[in-house]
Amino acid sequence: MTQIVVLTGGVGGAKLALGLSHILPDGALTAIVNTGDDFRHLGLHVSPDVDTLLYTLAGKANAAQGWGREGESWAFMAAVRELDGPDWFALGDGDMALHVLRTHRMAQGESLSQVTASFAARWNIASRIMPMSDDPVATMLATDDGLMEFQRYFVEQRCAPVVRAILFEGAEKARPAPGVVDAILSADAVLIAPSNPFLSVDPLLAVPGVRSALARTSAPVVAVSPLINGKAVKGPTAKLMGELHMPVDNDSIAQHYAGLIDAMLIDSGDPCDGTDIAIARCATLMTTLADKMRVAQAALDLATRLRA
Amino acid sequence: MTQIVVLTGGVGGAKLALGLSHILPDGALTAIVNTGDDFRHLGLHVSPDVDTLLYTLAGKANAAQGWGREGESWAFMAAVRELDGPDWFALGDGDMALHVLRTHRMAQGESLSQVTASFAARWNIASRIMPMSDDPVATMLATDDGLMEFQRYFVEQRCAPVVRAILFEGAEKARPAPGVVDAILSADAVLIAPSNPFLSVDPLLAVPGVRSALARTSAPVVAVSPLINGKAVKGPTAKLMGELHMPVDNDSIAQHYAGLIDAMLIDSGDPCDGTDIAIARCATLMTTLADKMRVAQAALDLATRLRA
Repeated sequence: MTQIVVLTGGVGGAKLALGLSHILPDGALTAIVNTGDDFRHLGLHVSPDVDTLLYTLAGKANAAQGWGREGESWAFMAAVRELDGPDWFALGDGDMALHVLRTHRMAQGESLSQVTASFAARWNIASRIMPMSDDPVATMLATDDGLMEFQRYFVEQRCAPVVRAILFEGAEKARPAPGVVDAILSADAVLIAPSNPFLSVDPLLAVPGVRSALARTSAPVVAVSPLINGKAVKGPTAKLMGELHMPVDNDSIAQHYAGLIDAMLIDSGDPCDGTDIAIARCATLMTTLADKMRVAQAALDLATRLRA
Repeated sequence: MTQIVVLTGGVGGAKLALGLSHILPDGALTAIVNTGDDFRHLGLHVSPDVDTLLYTLAGKANAAQGWGREGESWAFMAAVRELDGPDWFALGDGDMALHVLRTHRMAQGESLSQVTASFAARWNIASRIMPMSDDPVATMLATDDGLMEFQRYFVEQRCAPVVRAILFEGAEKARPAPGVVDAILSADAVLIAPSNPFLSVDPLLAVPGVRSALARTSAPVVAVSPLINGKAVKGPTAKLMGELHMPVDNDSIAQHYAGLIDAMLIDSGDPCDGTDIAIARCATLMTTLADKMRVAQAALDLATRLRA
């Protein structure tokens, strides 16, 4: 298979993308990335999932932390605190270059996808990284503490508020970024990364052009479940599913993606009984690079079986 | 004397301001600062002379370097270079907090003088630091290599181009920042710091309200010459004077400020014969804090003599 698309959020999705990039030829992978988490902070355009993909595929990610750059320093944040600036969202010194250059170049007329492609080229990333859209989409959470932006919920409130509904402001009017629809339609397989289905993948699916391209593509669509033994590896997936009154299991995930996916890869030990899509299993915990390559290969193998 | 105003540019002027702040009671000093060097870089509002005053009076300045913060780190610039961003103007990691917070707060409607006062308060600076104006003024140099912004001339070109004329775009329409005129009119003495008269002090004097307040104040106006033995301690003063066809001596400085100043403090060894304003002498090289306090005291003593 020569062209693979992965729809992805940040951390968990980036792990799968890294695995894919190591087993596919250069240029074969296109990551289409959630931008519902994007927000303006201190006047800067911050695009967390796009940055996580950039750092991960450039070999610059802080793997232990799950976000930001390896070897990051924090003099900027220390000075922001001195000056009574907001410190709930951490911006590393090196990381600031991405935000400042992106904000500046977008103010001068470049699109998010152009800037992203340019950064990826500078860092010799052999895969394509495309934001889902160049139009603004904002993931908003209706919680018991009121409506809040994604980063306020996720970072400032550490996912503590009880979520009643999730909205993607702007999504219905957002056009897929240039290349996104073509990539999906011409792909040999489309993978949905084990990112949070509700917070990281749903924003992608909320862009009408992305959803319809998924429906139209002849490529098999394979989701990798974010759950292992009824828990998410990281983040609020399981907590959210409880709050949204879903059983925290793979059947719920399969049902959530029903009509969009042809198959799902789940963890070796996990059940998935209530669905008629194809299911494959492997150990889906991705700690080492070998883990990431194994899960990537299993997802590709599942897609190959569907094409056969 | 209870209220002292110093008109100042960056490095050399900040040294005098620091000396003054050490010999005056808290709250007695008002520094009115050149903003002709201000510019937008990477979308950020950079205000170099205001920042030098802030860092110097907060005890955070890199004294050896003459600009920026002590103990600064450079991860941001390294990442900017990785991403092919412009690196001719160095922005330290801690320094970035000033630029980002200022730009953000000004975009939300605060003035430069409000933001500056707020930073000074956070750093417990006992002196007032006022930008000369909240309106944009841009020092532009007409050179043999064309018209260029101050920072392009000063930093990128290292003052190499031959200067034919200096323009202060916007100055004629700029209003003094709130408090500036009152400070000059109610001062017991007004000092002009040994900053570059053409690049750092002239922008202040080009603001009509500042110039007229200087003309109207009953306070003695005392300039500290930037020359020692026919040379400037730092920067292009002497080179500029040559290019502008002036003898590089104190008489030229006195003539440049003629009608505005009542007296001038010059270095002990230097002549100044061709002027009828009052002249006093001391060793004006300011290396140590004791030097700065000595020069500050000599300038205040000269002003006191004029008031007697």
